Amino acid sequence: MTQKTALTPATHTTPPAKFSHGVRKGNILQVAGQVGFLPAAEGVPPTPAGPTLREQTLQTLANVKAILEEGGARWDDVMMIRVYLTDVDHFAEFNAIYNGYFEEQNLVEPPAARTTVYVGLPKGLLVEIDALAVLD
Amino acid sequence: MTQKTALTPATHTTPPAKFSHGVRKGNILQVAGQVGFLPAAEGVPPTPAGPTLREQTLQTLANVKAILEEGGARWDDVMMIRVYLTDVDHFAEFNAIYNGYFEEQNLVEPPAARTTVYVGLPKGLLVEIDALAVLD
Amino acid sequence: MTQKTALTPATHTTPPAKFSHGVRKGNILQVAGQVGFLPAAEGVPPTPAGPTLREQTLQTLANVKAILEEGGARWDDVMMIRVYLTDVDHFAEFNAIYNGYFEEQNLVEPPAARTTVYVGLPKGLLVEIDALAVLD
Repeated sequence: MTQKTALTPATHTTPPAKFSHGVRKGNILQVAGQVGFLPAAEGVPPTPAGPTLREQTLQTLANVKAILEEGGARWDDVMMIRVYLTDVDHFAEFNAIYNGYFEEQNLVEPPAARTTVYVGLPKGLLVEIDALAVLD
Repeated sequence: MTQKTALTPATHTTPPAKFSHGVRKGNILQVAGQVGFLPAAEGVPPTPAGPTLREQTLQTLANVKAILEEGGARWDDVMMIRVYLTDVDHFAEFNAIYNGYFEEQNLVEPPAARTTVYVGLPKGLLVEIDALAVLD
Repeated sequence: MTQKTALTPATHTTPPAKFSHGVRKGNILQVAGQVGFLPAAEGVPPTPAGPTLREQTLQTLANVKAILEEGGARWDDVMMIRVYLTDVDHFAEFNAIYNGYFEEQNLVEPPAARTTVYVGLPKGLLVEIDALAVLD
């Protein structure tokens, strides 16, 4: 029997419901929708890294990465990244931030596929990202 | 050759287009977006379980579960649950319903990852949910 | 070690950011969100197949199919199709186009599961579709 393992980085705030920040079973790893919350701090409610798209995007990607690493994966293992933005006018700026981030990650394998759509998110949040990885 | 099998619980209304309510191939099981329609009844068009978020959420989760079971899976096998709500103000109430539901499911393994976003849905529908499972 | 391969049909326009139109690793193939852009032409910016839902849907499905084929897959291998429309009033027309398209694809296996939601998309685009396939 293959076990499903919850991936819960120490830096992460407690999920607001009964779900895992990430799960791995066999070679499949799924990261839950992450937002730009700063690392969890005792007694402090979840707090976005800042009001800007740049701050929130970089924090969100760091939060996704922490879950991947908790499960023994890297960005190179990611097959699909789902990006939820709140405003179509953010697309160009988001792509510039995204490209800059991944240039610094020194990927060896081709980048993941991606879908970007524009939805509603809780007040103050500009971006949400989830990811599906397939490990070797 | 691994076969793809359609998962069609007897309780389900006919999909409004050429898609399956669920499919399984090998150990991967994908549940299509479910809404809160009551079990299918001869000659009756698809009817939501009620106008409230609670009624629709519980029916939607029951509909997802029926497809999982049709494919030999359980909630414990689910890696990812995608939740589509129509109103950010429903988040807290939805989480309370979601948590209560899963407390009653007696999961043995950690809960699935989840992404929740706010989108448009057909008139009268407040929630849509799909799920990806990986079987043992 | 299993390699991740980028799937880049010659007909496709360059992605607007560091992502792949599709990736395959082992028997998992993920197609990125496709829209109704015509085949790439030197020196011409990405151009939708036309202003109508029909034109864009058929081109989008052709774009998804090209990526599947680049990765050695067919529609029969697809487990999940995610459809993003911009207007709930497009649902019936979309389903008619979708059904007509798949009737012509002569699927041998059951159709994929599907989720359809209504989101914002960049100006001029009426539909976006991505797909997850599991190969034999």
